[in-house]
Amino acid sequence: MEYRRIKDQDKDGDAVPDDLESLRGKPHSGSPKNVVALGGSSASTWKRKSIVTLALTILTSSQAILIVWSKRAGKYEYSVTTANFLVEALKCTLSLAALARIWRSEGVTDDNRLSTTWDEVSVYPIPAALYLIKNLLQYYIFAYVDAPGYQILKNLNIISTGVLYRIILKKRLSEIQWTAFILLCAGCTTAQLNSNSDRVLQTPFTGWLMAIVMALLSGFAGVYTEAIIKKRPSRNINVQNFWLYVFGMAFNAIAILVQDFDAVINKGFFHGYSLITVLMIVNHALSGIAVSMVMKYADNIVKVYSTSVAMLLTAIVSVFLFGFHLSLAFFLGSTVVSVSVYLHSIGKLQR
Amino acid sequence: MEYRRIKDQDKDGDAVPDDLESLRGKPHSGSPKNVVALGGSSASTWKRKSIVTLALTILTSSQAILIVWSKRAGKYEYSVTTANFLVEALKCTLSLAALARIWRSEGVTDDNRLSTTWDEVSVYPIPAALYLIKNLLQYYIFAYVDAPGYQILKNLNIISTGVLYRIILKKRLSEIQWTAFILLCAGCTTAQLNSNSDRVLQTPFTGWLMAIVMALLSGFAGVYTEAIIKKRPSRNINVQNFWLYVFGMAFNAIAILVQDFDAVINKGFFHGYSLITVLMIVNHALSGIAVSMVMKYADNIVKVYSTSVAMLLTAIVSVFLFGFHLSLAFFLGSTVVSVSVYLHSIGKLQR
Repeated sequence: MEYRRIKDQDKDGDAVPDDLESLRGKPHSGSPKNVVALGGSSASTWKRKSIVTLALTILTSSQAILIVWSKRAGKYEYSVTTANFLVEALKCTLSLAALARIWRSEGVTDDNRLSTTWDEVSVYPIPAALYLIKNLLQYYIFAYVDAPGYQILKNLNIISTGVLYRIILKKRLSEIQWTAFILLCAGCTTAQLNSNSDRVLQTPFTGWLMAIVMALLSGFAGVYTEAIIKKRPSRNINVQNFWLYVFGMAFNAIAILVQDFDAVINKGFFHGYSLITVLMIVNHALSGIAVSMVMKYADNIVKVYSTSVAMLLTAIVSVFLFGFHLSLAFFLGSTVVSVSVYLHSIGKLQR
Repeated sequence: MEYRRIKDQDKDGDAVPDDLESLRGKPHSGSPKNVVALGGSSASTWKRKSIVTLALTILTSSQAILIVWSKRAGKYEYSVTTANFLVEALKCTLSLAALARIWRSEGVTDDNRLSTTWDEVSVYPIPAALYLIKNLLQYYIFAYVDAPGYQILKNLNIISTGVLYRIILKKRLSEIQWTAFILLCAGCTTAQLNSNSDRVLQTPFTGWLMAIVMALLSGFAGVYTEAIIKKRPSRNINVQNFWLYVFGMAFNAIAILVQDFDAVINKGFFHGYSLITVLMIVNHALSGIAVSMVMKYADNIVKVYSTSVAMLLTAIVSVFLFGFHLSLAFFLGSTVVSVSVYLHSIGKLQR
């Protein structure tokens, strides 16, 4: 099992509050200078973690708002595969631009050089391949569930991420944190309830199975990406992103060939693009980079909480932007999600 | 909603695990013999507590099932005030019967004698008076909320009971237990959601205010009953019940005079009674006694959990009895309530 190997090479690459805890718990050995240095680095890591988490939350919220906006503005007949390809290409370009700046200021080192070994790069196509399989399955699941039902089933991702995070990365969650995770899943689903939600209970067995497989694929891809990125903590994140996104481009190019080749040849690559399409591509690219940063400086659990809170923020912002009404289910779901966030934080302290 | 009125009178009251906890927490003073005696009594207290809690849960479930059954069987034009009076009278009779058995086997002692002092009995009318005020308010709240909306607002009782339990009985709940209480309220409300629930958000300010006042009255009555019953732990519960129910009879007699005097004079006291009415009266009487027992041997918190779990059990039993369908909201709410029960128990351990 390759991921285990990855994980083993990266022990103690844990999130920051844990480090803080262990610092507090252990008797301080060594010079006071040493302790101060450790404290300083922890504080700055914590700051970096907060910034990337906040960025992911804001980007995910605005992403959903752009989707609502684009739906309101009318249908867009652009091909989704070309848009996905452009998202990967933009992420690649942004990573290279960031690297260029770093090379100018710091020079090329072992950690920020673009050239890599087969051994390092061989695992990078895996997340992209998993997402491709998941996206292909997505076309078939709609034979069994409608789109709002699928939105509800997607909350299974929360549970699958937690379980795979535990199994693959071998990181322990406390009992209270597991409880918090179940509540996060229940709370997010509750917040999305509407008068048609009960139809999801009529989903046939095949539909449930596909939803579970998709949740596992998505969870696995997320956790595996974290394992790859954390494998070599000193490696520059932009180099890691570059290689992840290069394979993302490649797999999306295959998807264009398979699904939209005729449309692209006949109508052109950018057929049906508008300002909103461009904004959505930019937003997806930035969110994608924020996800990588969260994987590097925090973890998949933080990512799940961040995107769940973003879902609630989106609904609240939509009240002001689009005059949406919040349902009682939304308030109840938000309460449960808030309790979950609180329990997750106290669960960490009690670990 | 008429039956509900009866049900409400028997709501709210709790304390044995707390005693167990405080026993464990405190350094044991006195002889080892003393410690053993305490341990033995704790085990039997725990057993007694479990039995009364189970009885309350089953009786509350079957109560709701009788309500559904009576609705299915058609309307019953009996006067609710006479039924309430009979519930109190039956509880009084059962308490006296239990006392008669005890007097025969144990003789009359200071703890089981029926005669009382003014000082002891003066507080007993208070819970009955509070419930009467609450029931009168109930007629007015329906000008602002419909019956299903009122069912949802009644979940505020959970929070008010927790707050008043803390303030009046001065018993501490741990942070996790408070969190569990918020979840219990959110989970019960979620489980009751249906397509019309959002209307409750349109409740005018006066409606909210009345719902909060009613929740506080109900919570206060429950917590106050617990305070009365626990004031003298050695006092026989049947004597305490007898005095509580005597005042219940008195206040319900006033209600008959005020509300249904004409109907009783013209149509008779038992007008409109049927087998289901009788079964409901017996059930309410037994549930009322179970509530008192839970107040004596456990506490209001246990009572709230017991009636909440009963609500879920009722829904599940109704699937088999009446072919009801369970909603997705019900599953989500049940998950949150289950997590709440779990958190309450671990919150107790960590206190």
